[in-house]
Amino acid sequence: MRRSARIAAVTKLLVDRPYQTITLTHLSELLGAAKSTLSEDIAIIRETFARLELGRVETIAGAAGGVRYAPLLSGAQMRAVVGGLVEALSDPERILPGGFLYVNDIVAAPQLLAQIGELFATRFYDREPDVVVTVETRGIPIAMMTARALNVPLAIVRRSSRLGDGTVVTMNYVSGSAQRIETMSLSRRAVPAGSRVLIIDDFMKAGGTARGLVDLMGEFDAEVAGIGVLIETAAPEEKLVDDYTSLVVLEAVRERPREVVVRPSAWLAGV
Amino acid sequence: MRRSARIAAVTKLLVDRPYQTITLTHLSELLGAAKSTLSEDIAIIRETFARLELGRVETIAGAAGGVRYAPLLSGAQMRAVVGGLVEALSDPERILPGGFLYVNDIVAAPQLLAQIGELFATRFYDREPDVVVTVETRGIPIAMMTARALNVPLAIVRRSSRLGDGTVVTMNYVSGSAQRIETMSLSRRAVPAGSRVLIIDDFMKAGGTARGLVDLMGEFDAEVAGIGVLIETAAPEEKLVDDYTSLVVLEAVRERPREVVVRPSAWLAGV
Repeated sequence: MRRSARIAAVTKLLVDRPYQTITLTHLSELLGAAKSTLSEDIAIIRETFARLELGRVETIAGAAGGVRYAPLLSGAQMRAVVGGLVEALSDPERILPGGFLYVNDIVAAPQLLAQIGELFATRFYDREPDVVVTVETRGIPIAMMTARALNVPLAIVRRSSRLGDGTVVTMNYVSGSAQRIETMSLSRRAVPAGSRVLIIDDFMKAGGTARGLVDLMGEFDAEVAGIGVLIETAAPEEKLVDDYTSLVVLEAVRERPREVVVRPSAWLAGV
Repeated sequence: MRRSARIAAVTKLLVDRPYQTITLTHLSELLGAAKSTLSEDIAIIRETFARLELGRVETIAGAAGGVRYAPLLSGAQMRAVVGGLVEALSDPERILPGGFLYVNDIVAAPQLLAQIGELFATRFYDREPDVVVTVETRGIPIAMMTARALNVPLAIVRRSSRLGDGTVVTMNYVSGSAQRIETMSLSRRAVPAGSRVLIIDDFMKAGGTARGLVDLMGEFDAEVAGIGVLIETAAPEEKLVDDYTSLVVLEAVRERPREVVVRPSAWLAGV
């Protein structure tokens, strides 16, 4: 097999498996090439990815050594993804009666969410999360894509538990905005004790749900490594959690004239 | 830029964007290479993918021409994915009191679901669906990965509607197994009239939910192009929908001795 064909194959295998180490032994058997030859191929892929900002190719030395692909975005790429999100959200056609905003299409658009998953992975990979946690329903696709980009499992908190959930931990909490009592439930086996948890959700207003998730993680003896939300509202300014990252800030939804005021979150200017 | 570097870059861009056409003009500008040179690069990628069963690279001729990657699995790969699923489901540790089976980890495992999404895409791409529909909650990650592999949007049917859903169509239906009245709701704008819909869910017992989704799609003047489920139960043998594809058949969950009897679905033998 020629170098160009080997590089096509190795690139495919890497990109399909974010954050999964592929051993040189495996590649050697699959492609019938010497490990030294494959190391040269991988060096070319790594340099090309670095030059064109296509993510990072990491080599792991040692007996269990190999190579893996980290789907990390550059600052410019992150700003471009969020810029597209701001543009999509600004469409006045999204305004619903009562000042609500229709976002169901955005939170279920596979290719956009693949990029947003990589964005959250870029933001949080150095916190070394080993599970992504979200609460049903609209946050699930975003959380799934983030979990895929980080190669960690996803745990879905339910509003009510089912028989198939096995033993669950159920918690009541007060939603920050509506001051209603809400319930959340999570299977005991979904988050092992000592886990480092990344919380991902679609929307944050006062932060009551995020606060509830943080408290729930305490019941699992898990540590919250980070909180990422797609959209936060500008008001209330004081949230019930401190350390979170949002992608866009929703300032206002006006019905007359019809206008959505939304901007990129401030931290993006510094990446 | 050398051929090997160009091939690494083009492979990365293709694999990241299932079923999205990338124009030669775009690649030419990005990589500073002539279209004729890029066509040679793409031929090498296409042949390598075909030989190693890494999916299909399709070239689209004409003015809007370009290239795209179809993440199609071979029959052997599909059987291997389902074989792994059968093995995972067979673990007696999954048995819950009352003969329920714990599958929450499986239906939220990103890398497994990426493969299952490609499997459903392989099964249904020739039905040309233009939207994937699922019902909350556990089917969402599977449906998301299928939608990504097919490059179509996802629409999530809710058990109850929210203000942010805008105008919804709400339907009552009778669940096939428990004979309970259930409700499902979907935003009017989530599925345009005339859509070809692929229904994806995690579990089918009598098929009442699938039947409900088929009926709901009628209210949207949409056509059901296919139904895919991860797990079906062997009983009842007669389902409330006719044309569906399951990956595994759950025969029995026994509590003493603890045993899960599960097998690959019959159609997999013929692929």
